[in-house]
Amino acid sequence: MSKKTNNEKLTIFALGGVGEIGKNMYVVQYGNDIVVIDSGLKFPEEDMLGIDIVIPDISYLTENRDKVRGILLTHGHEDHIGGLPYVLKHLNVPVYGTKLTIGLVENKLKEANLLGETKRILINEDSEVKLGSTLTATFFRTNHSIPDSVGICLATPEGNVVHTGDFKFDHTPVNDEFANLQRMAEIGSKGVLALLSDSTNADRPGYTPSEKNVGIVMEDIFRKASQRVVVATFASNVHRIQQVINAAAATGRKVTVIGRSMVNVVGIAEDLGYLEIPDGMLIEPEEVNKMAADRVVILSTGSQGEPMSALTRMARSTHRKVDILPGDTVIIAATPVPGNEKYIGRTIDELFRLGANVFYSGANPGVHVSGHGSQEELKLMLNLMKPKFFLPIHGEYRMQRRHALLGESVGVDPNNIFIVDIGDVVEIHGGSARKAGKVTSGNVLIDGLGVGDVGNIVLRDRKLLSQDGILVVVVTLSKQNGQIVSGPDIISRGFVYVRESEGLLDEANRIVTSTLQRLMSENVNEWASLKTSVKDALGRFLYEQTRRRPMILPIIMEV
Amino acid sequence: MSKKTNNEKLTIFALGGVGEIGKNMYVVQYGNDIVVIDSGLKFPEEDMLGIDIVIPDISYLTENRDKVRGILLTHGHEDHIGGLPYVLKHLNVPVYGTKLTIGLVENKLKEANLLGETKRILINEDSEVKLGSTLTATFFRTNHSIPDSVGICLATPEGNVVHTGDFKFDHTPVNDEFANLQRMAEIGSKGVLALLSDSTNADRPGYTPSEKNVGIVMEDIFRKASQRVVVATFASNVHRIQQVINAAAATGRKVTVIGRSMVNVVGIAEDLGYLEIPDGMLIEPEEVNKMAADRVVILSTGSQGEPMSALTRMARSTHRKVDILPGDTVIIAATPVPGNEKYIGRTIDELFRLGANVFYSGANPGVHVSGHGSQEELKLMLNLMKPKFFLPIHGEYRMQRRHALLGESVGVDPNNIFIVDIGDVVEIHGGSARKAGKVTSGNVLIDGLGVGDVGNIVLRDRKLLSQDGILVVVVTLSKQNGQIVSGPDIISRGFVYVRESEGLLDEANRIVTSTLQRLMSENVNEWASLKTSVKDALGRFLYEQTRRRPMILPIIMEV
Repeated sequence: MSKKTNNEKLTIFALGGVGEIGKNMYVVQYGNDIVVIDSGLKFPEEDMLGIDIVIPDISYLTENRDKVRGILLTHGHEDHIGGLPYVLKHLNVPVYGTKLTIGLVENKLKEANLLGETKRILINEDSEVKLGSTLTATFFRTNHSIPDSVGICLATPEGNVVHTGDFKFDHTPVNDEFANLQRMAEIGSKGVLALLSDSTNADRPGYTPSEKNVGIVMEDIFRKASQRVVVATFASNVHRIQQVINAAAATGRKVTVIGRSMVNVVGIAEDLGYLEIPDGMLIEPEEVNKMAADRVVILSTGSQGEPMSALTRMARSTHRKVDILPGDTVIIAATPVPGNEKYIGRTIDELFRLGANVFYSGANPGVHVSGHGSQEELKLMLNLMKPKFFLPIHGEYRMQRRHALLGESVGVDPNNIFIVDIGDVVEIHGGSARKAGKVTSGNVLIDGLGVGDVGNIVLRDRKLLSQDGILVVVVTLSKQNGQIVSGPDIISRGFVYVRESEGLLDEANRIVTSTLQRLMSENVNEWASLKTSVKDALGRFLYEQTRRRPMILPIIMEV
Repeated sequence: MSKKTNNEKLTIFALGGVGEIGKNMYVVQYGNDIVVIDSGLKFPEEDMLGIDIVIPDISYLTENRDKVRGILLTHGHEDHIGGLPYVLKHLNVPVYGTKLTIGLVENKLKEANLLGETKRILINEDSEVKLGSTLTATFFRTNHSIPDSVGICLATPEGNVVHTGDFKFDHTPVNDEFANLQRMAEIGSKGVLALLSDSTNADRPGYTPSEKNVGIVMEDIFRKASQRVVVATFASNVHRIQQVINAAAATGRKVTVIGRSMVNVVGIAEDLGYLEIPDGMLIEPEEVNKMAADRVVILSTGSQGEPMSALTRMARSTHRKVDILPGDTVIIAATPVPGNEKYIGRTIDELFRLGANVFYSGANPGVHVSGHGSQEELKLMLNLMKPKFFLPIHGEYRMQRRHALLGESVGVDPNNIFIVDIGDVVEIHGGSARKAGKVTSGNVLIDGLGVGDVGNIVLRDRKLLSQDGILVVVVTLSKQNGQIVSGPDIISRGFVYVRESEGLLDEANRIVTSTLQRLMSENVNEWASLKTSVKDALGRFLYEQTRRRPMILPIIMEV
């Protein structure tokens, strides 16, 4: 334990990842030393129209930039590293991660032209990282759906703070990447002040099956398939990719890799030694059509039915290189991320229509297992760590809540369990903890290049526009006598199909004219009043006629 | 069997309900007699922006209106009766249904001012309905998540066509509403030419549990709850409502009903004798706060997290009459309809945040069972009916496909199984069947009052507007010399927050001005060219600066 000064306090809070799935970012601060754990992105909610990605508000970190000692990464998933290119632009601090994690980060930073100016520091399970004068990080290997995942033990003057990262306990891991139970037990026996643990599957009773189960199912499907096999899975699931390669080897098939992120990850993982690919196993997509159908496996992106992904293109017969033929087998080795159910369903339907035999988790549960531990595993982690204070993280509120109940069930004092929202500060001092206010936190919505300039007003307008479209009403008035010189012209977009609605728009035109004429005869000539009156009269008329409320934009010109 | 004329053929097709979940509408025609089975609506897909509901294109029926003998209804769910108010406006034919179904239909027709002009004919299990000179319908009782559900046996000169409606086999039905296995077996032993059967759960192995299981779970939760219990479920699930009432009676609680559709259905179902409610059991919402918390059950809409529903309002503390208090119990007795997962998740989170104890199907599978039969039940239906031809209906393509495989597994000749899309005609003549072209079919999108005027162009515009908003560029040119008299003025909505982006919009302004000046100096003065050039120049500039593509609407006025 580092030296302790009496007036300093330990604070822990999340800038993302609690009350939500995604944009994980946790902060531990002692005095002048701030350590950030993970820096993820989140995909937009369905009401964030036009938004590409969402990252945490990092005002607290930029305002305290001189104290931030580094960003520690638990593993290489987008919801843990995807925010880095945006965060590092505003906060140039060292990034610590295992070999595969850093490999994936470097790929990202290259694309964002940030590789040169970012200090990357490789860690492994035996590393000890000094962060400022008071904090020291050590690591322990976990199992997850990407190799090289670690949990973090942060020694602070108040005691050890443990962050599990994302984890499950897989007792038969692919490539023998065992979780380090001994290290975890050792940390637990030395004493854990506070545990931050993954709540994703806190709803699920029992144990999550081993990733190896998927390999067995996969090999069986490969063996029975009389033609080509397409496997779609998350590009980052290197274990699963290894199993696809193993199953292909066992059944005498060659593998081709398609989809940008799949090609990327396979390249990085193979270079860094995380994938064992027999010589001659990989073939180019162009070779697929030259080979016997029962000698081929196509490893592809698109397991979420993403509209532009390789699998979706294949399903729509718009992929440049690979067609799905009747009798082909497609395995969608993933479960839908909430919100994607309809997209993935549509892709499955299209594949079936093409005559493929489709295996997917809804009908064939064996083709996918989760990377997150279920209730018994969460209890195992709690029992290994025996924390004094417990913060369920990484999950929607209901999952955190359920995880809190699991904590209680294994004996954590309910008063020592903190279900935090983003920004909520837990302060620990002299062995007691309390909620201590909030730091700035929130969503930063990124649309295109811009950061931060898509706010509530813009989103509200997009929402309105998406529901009933817009009518622009243009009128030119005379400066001399205030009479209408030209117009009103009404242009609509997204409201009605104009050719079928001429009568409606003609009548709308008359209503605008008569409204303006009435006002002018009453000598109302401030533009604001004219505009409001036109908006009201036209809005009322259109709602009566159509029960729709398009946005109305009156434009008055004066000449 | 009715008399047969040699030159007539039997045709069967769907106008909705296949390749999709929703807007069920099936058509059976023999010569001059057309019978329609069901007339449902569908809720819009996520890319149908601003659309309220979707109904089938019924051009075929309106073009053959003199032949349509009636609409037979299998049960009272929205996806089977919800399209009636729109269909009956264009096609005034008699509607046949069981007592509860007609009761629910009348409520709809009243709201649409169509009650007076619509002929409603009550049927029961012993009815025989002559439809034109060649078709006769009889009925058989089934189990489903709404009482009074029936399947239909349509005797035609070619043989019997059976439509199952939505069904499960519940051997311990609520209110002893047993499915009529004997009648089904009898129909099967007389011979079924073609079976149209519900494919909803064709993916699910085994049997769907009895609705009564939910009652047992519910009573147990009621008994253990120390405060108020809120139950949210589908308003139309009268069996479940009965079980809530039974569980309340068994645990000494009173019930209040909130949410418009729940109040409606409970009223209709009680009036018609489908709900047994003990005297004094129902209380007004206003009385809830006066009663001891452990004496109250609140029966509510909102099981799908619909933003305006009673449960969502309670979860957000914006309901006028009922608050959720810490320690209350909430049961969400439903599974999310695909696409609603996030809404319902958010509602659950809000309820937990208010301190409620929430039971929902994800974590507590016992609080809901499906109303549709699983694989073993689908096979049972196939074996009861022993059809010559089989059309899996009521489902997405993958479900129809899986149902077809179930058909094969029980011995239906694969050549006699037809997986149809909407509009695909199956023609049966002299004991052989074939696909015989298509009739007009499709989606009619209803936004507000209008029917049919929201087409692809309008939807495409709404999509564009929702992604990056709109910029309106207004310029007034002089008739005399073509010079700019006023403007350009740029008004944006849903693009950027103007106050933060003044520089960008100023620069945009300069680009429009210089583009126009250049064109005018080149003597280009057709408005179409001017507009296109402004659009192109501005679009390019904005994309470079922001990577966004707002809709650009140039408006040129001349004075």
